[in-house]
Amino acid sequence: MAYETSDNSKTWAVVAAIVVVVFAAIGWLIFRPSGEGGAQGPGGATLTRMPGDANSIIKNRQMSPEDVLAALTTYMPSGKHDDYMMFASGGHGGQVLVIGVPSMRLLKVIGVFTPEPWQGWGFSEETRAVINGKAGDGTDLLWGDTHHPALSETNGEYDGQFLFINDKASARVAVIDLRDFETKQIVKNPLAINDHGGAFVTPDTEWVIEGGQYAHPIGGKYASLADYKKSYRGLVTCWKFDRKKGSIDPSKSFAIELPPYWQDLSDAGKLVSDGWIFLNSFNTEMATGGGEKKGGVWFEAGTTQRDMDYLHVINLKKAIATAAAGKTTTINGFRMIPLQTAASESILYFAPEPKSPHGVDVTPGGEYMVVSGKLDPHVTIFSFQKMMDAIKNKSFSGKDPYGVPIFDFKKVVEKQVELGLGPLHTQFDDKGYAYTSLFLDSAVARWSLGGPYEKLHSDKPWTLVKKIPVQYNVGHLAAAEGDTAKPAGHFLVALNKWSVDRFANVGPLLPQNLQLVDISNPGDKMQVLYDMPIGIGEPHYSQIIKADKIKAWDVYPEIGWSPVTQSKSPKATTVGQERIVRNGNTVEVFMTAIRSHLNPEHVEVKKGDKVIWHVTNVERARDATHGFALFNHNLSLEPGETETISFTATKEGVYPYYCTEFCSALHLEMTGYLLVKP
Amino acid sequence: MAYETSDNSKTWAVVAAIVVVVFAAIGWLIFRPSGEGGAQGPGGATLTRMPGDANSIIKNRQMSPEDVLAALTTYMPSGKHDDYMMFASGGHGGQVLVIGVPSMRLLKVIGVFTPEPWQGWGFSEETRAVINGKAGDGTDLLWGDTHHPALSETNGEYDGQFLFINDKASARVAVIDLRDFETKQIVKNPLAINDHGGAFVTPDTEWVIEGGQYAHPIGGKYASLADYKKSYRGLVTCWKFDRKKGSIDPSKSFAIELPPYWQDLSDAGKLVSDGWIFLNSFNTEMATGGGEKKGGVWFEAGTTQRDMDYLHVINLKKAIATAAAGKTTTINGFRMIPLQTAASESILYFAPEPKSPHGVDVTPGGEYMVVSGKLDPHVTIFSFQKMMDAIKNKSFSGKDPYGVPIFDFKKVVEKQVELGLGPLHTQFDDKGYAYTSLFLDSAVARWSLGGPYEKLHSDKPWTLVKKIPVQYNVGHLAAAEGDTAKPAGHFLVALNKWSVDRFANVGPLLPQNLQLVDISNPGDKMQVLYDMPIGIGEPHYSQIIKADKIKAWDVYPEIGWSPVTQSKSPKATTVGQERIVRNGNTVEVFMTAIRSHLNPEHVEVKKGDKVIWHVTNVERARDATHGFALFNHNLSLEPGETETISFTATKEGVYPYYCTEFCSALHLEMTGYLLVKP
Repeated sequence: MAYETSDNSKTWAVVAAIVVVVFAAIGWLIFRPSGEGGAQGPGGATLTRMPGDANSIIKNRQMSPEDVLAALTTYMPSGKHDDYMMFASGGHGGQVLVIGVPSMRLLKVIGVFTPEPWQGWGFSEETRAVINGKAGDGTDLLWGDTHHPALSETNGEYDGQFLFINDKASARVAVIDLRDFETKQIVKNPLAINDHGGAFVTPDTEWVIEGGQYAHPIGGKYASLADYKKSYRGLVTCWKFDRKKGSIDPSKSFAIELPPYWQDLSDAGKLVSDGWIFLNSFNTEMATGGGEKKGGVWFEAGTTQRDMDYLHVINLKKAIATAAAGKTTTINGFRMIPLQTAASESILYFAPEPKSPHGVDVTPGGEYMVVSGKLDPHVTIFSFQKMMDAIKNKSFSGKDPYGVPIFDFKKVVEKQVELGLGPLHTQFDDKGYAYTSLFLDSAVARWSLGGPYEKLHSDKPWTLVKKIPVQYNVGHLAAAEGDTAKPAGHFLVALNKWSVDRFANVGPLLPQNLQLVDISNPGDKMQVLYDMPIGIGEPHYSQIIKADKIKAWDVYPEIGWSPVTQSKSPKATTVGQERIVRNGNTVEVFMTAIRSHLNPEHVEVKKGDKVIWHVTNVERARDATHGFALFNHNLSLEPGETETISFTATKEGVYPYYCTEFCSALHLEMTGYLLVKP
Repeated sequence: MAYETSDNSKTWAVVAAIVVVVFAAIGWLIFRPSGEGGAQGPGGATLTRMPGDANSIIKNRQMSPEDVLAALTTYMPSGKHDDYMMFASGGHGGQVLVIGVPSMRLLKVIGVFTPEPWQGWGFSEETRAVINGKAGDGTDLLWGDTHHPALSETNGEYDGQFLFINDKASARVAVIDLRDFETKQIVKNPLAINDHGGAFVTPDTEWVIEGGQYAHPIGGKYASLADYKKSYRGLVTCWKFDRKKGSIDPSKSFAIELPPYWQDLSDAGKLVSDGWIFLNSFNTEMATGGGEKKGGVWFEAGTTQRDMDYLHVINLKKAIATAAAGKTTTINGFRMIPLQTAASESILYFAPEPKSPHGVDVTPGGEYMVVSGKLDPHVTIFSFQKMMDAIKNKSFSGKDPYGVPIFDFKKVVEKQVELGLGPLHTQFDDKGYAYTSLFLDSAVARWSLGGPYEKLHSDKPWTLVKKIPVQYNVGHLAAAEGDTAKPAGHFLVALNKWSVDRFANVGPLLPQNLQLVDISNPGDKMQVLYDMPIGIGEPHYSQIIKADKIKAWDVYPEIGWSPVTQSKSPKATTVGQERIVRNGNTVEVFMTAIRSHLNPEHVEVKKGDKVIWHVTNVERARDATHGFALFNHNLSLEPGETETISFTATKEGVYPYYCTEFCSALHLEMTGYLLVKP
């Protein structure tokens, strides 16, 4: 690992810092408020006194000048709001993390694929129906492996309305509404067992793209690995998003069958490349593993034989037209453009890309596709125009075994820039720089773009400008609006996979380390500002949006709101309408919650009764959330919200129910008794 | 709400800050490293350049001098570790949150009552068996309402070995081992439906105390609310902890039957009061609610009629002896000292306490019990010695309806200190101060202790010294080691229930706001340093321990470790011993995981087979965690760990399994195929 400063220079930095604060202390001594019980400002009001001076804090804490600047840059005074909001996947935690930038404070975890009782996610009838997943063995699926969040876009820029995220483990895509930061829909891919290269949106969010991962027989059939080349396939799925309804329409969506390479990260074209999508792939060797067998080769060796894999270049507009023309086959009720059709209809092309690539990232203007081959020290920059020229001129170097035309690498590549070991993912700023994560180097590389970006910086184009170490094993990067048509610059977050020695020891399972990097200055000036431990999931990718683009609700629009439908619930109960309705062996409770009582406080049923219980929070004050706990249920009822639980009263007894949110001074008194009579 | 500074004084503060940094900038100009591409320190190494100067940052960000000091105090440079670790309950999230202090960074969420797939908690056979809860309606209980964490103690001081936490919703107590920060045991109270006043430990952690909450018929029977006084009861449970085994022994534990008041917070005596425990109660009115009925009274009104409730003063040593003598009744296989026996054997006494109390907190030396009546503006300080004198002299004011002797309030009270509206909980420091949260005032009050603590400070004893506003509605407080025999002082955290306007808007469900307060200076000097949003649970109580007391493992002690038993698993697999064993329709897989392959990579079974699958992570490097995803399972395998999943192969097909932790550059290649043949 490379460090920037030697021990001597660190000592020098500390000395410099101490001198700096001596001057600061002089300034303080001259201008500080004076007096015994608190000093007088010009207005005569009492100033709160200092807990000590900056000098002694910096000295005692042995802070370097860089530490001081980082502290001042990232600290968020009480009541001031972060400039940016980062949406990070939670990996195999199955959720989405919302993080304030630059303070790097976790503002919220959004329940997506995994039930989470604090927010009541999956603990009401309504939200459980959204999760409602089944695993391949028929059991309830109560987790997901979230990888790539995608904010909705308008004209290639984040618009702050929706967030999409995939589940790699079970090939699902979720839709989150950013008016209330809740998941509204989860679609299961009817053809795929797993995914990876999603979710990515087209520049106006008409389509949500879900790329595949490990090849398998399409639609869930069995086939022997001996028949891999014939029976296994890759896949990319284009989900049609209805912005007005806020949901994906599977009936208007379709997939494209791909060769059994392992498709990886993907990105949508924008501006000049609008209408195209790009997917990496690896294991174009079509290795089938089995290292445990005599003569067998582990996947890690078998998938890394070739020097080149294939960037999949897909004409989305043509694919949409082809699907609309009915040139699809239907499997499990879902439309798919067959591989032969994709090749023959000029939907699919391959560009050779070195070696076992991971990320593909489109430049802000859409001109270039930047690919990182994780076993190659370069980033490879493809020219969209050159690829279009090759298609126009029918200039190909050949076809793959499935008949897909392959570009001549030299004719479509713009540049290659050597960065270091293990390049993975690239983001962009507003100054004509790109940033690439280097997993094996544990570093972030800033390099200069050429072409139309050359005028934005004073560095030589297509050149490594600076590498800074991060701790450790960086996966994705996220720059502020750094994958949009208009990157913000300013901040970048390195999503490091290992933290090793960075944090106090919390046992053998360590947090990840998300490091905030200042990228606001050009040239070789970059600084790691902050280490944020993540001990609740493993963020793969994240996106950072300007916070003022998010227009979230303070409270739900009206009393009796169902967040799942984003409309008034038919089971909404208003004050005075609370009731218990018996119909045979079914008892239906219509309850309200308000500080500080639940109405009703007594519910009597008979053993064996089926009980359906609706609770409406009738509060209108912001933050006046109530909870409702009974048996295996916990509801979180935000102001105006209606949710439902149901159960069978299988056992006689007395069961207190209560509000689980500390809502008022008499919160503990906000309770009632369910009596199950013999 | 009271604010400390007027707008004018804020302006003055900003001016002062700017002047301070001008001097700092001068210092920087003199001593800054010079040169074009990075300056030379004395050692000749390149210093990283500044991203800008402190002056412009403070100016641009409009930071006050207090903000600057707070930033410098809380910022944790990369690689430096927090001085303290805070263990906070996660409320109805069901988990425990581990937070670094003073940086207020969330280091880890510990899975306790709620399954959590990132850490594999509840997603392996072994850990699911620990959760294994059943709700009152017979369904699986997959959440909890964690309230009060209790670190294990030796001589009344935290020893960093174990953590206990209760589940209010279902009356359970969990044991967490701080060698690996994982839950080892969950005990369900066989007599109680819910709890609140726990967990609290005795000074050497021989007993873990679980106080009740809402009265109900003991042991889960039905009884009409009309029979409340006769058939409903309160409860306190004393769980025997076996430190060597690291688990609670229910067979050596017992409960004490209490009147049907609603027992609330509790605390154990220490030093001079060692051997006694103290429980608050409210609803000594024995109100039964039903405000929805004609003439009915809501609980919020019915439970707040009396001016006094009862502090339960319990002779634990005598209770232990009484239980050992067999003077118990057994319900659901669990021993209970009947209420009449508790009264007649001089185990239980009542001290009148004002009004609808919430917290009871014992001073560091054990001399005083501090009670906060949430509808009374005072804290009430009881003298343990005076209570002992009253018992000795048989000086009581009478008995309650259940025959329990009641102290004369005036004869056992030491002092009352008026603090403000809605006092809840009290913590202590090393300077002779107590800190009480004021829910309705949204403030933290510092007040001076008397008696043996008077010599530690220069304030008038038993007096309010300072109140500082917090944002908003503070519940518990936690000071560094602030409920032990040796408080550390330094920091205090206000666990505020509402955040309202403190953070960027993330929708109608808002985070809580944990505010760090500097209490290191005496007298009226206190400062809010940091606002930490909590958007993953609602912390009720927390404890803050010196971080160097935690001696957690870097990796598991040996390959094949089962964290649940803290011993080697009989299903451990070493390299070379991987195998697939068929026995009739049962297939058992013994797999290893190492960077970057799973062994075996192929597993073939037949439709209908029962599959039991053990995975051992054979890594020994710190942070080399692997995941394992298949169907509804996700394991987190820390270095050395063995875990098991099982399923029935109900559906033919091809199912990729893979490592879910980004463990190496070839992590995506760490996969395999499960083939379920027709």
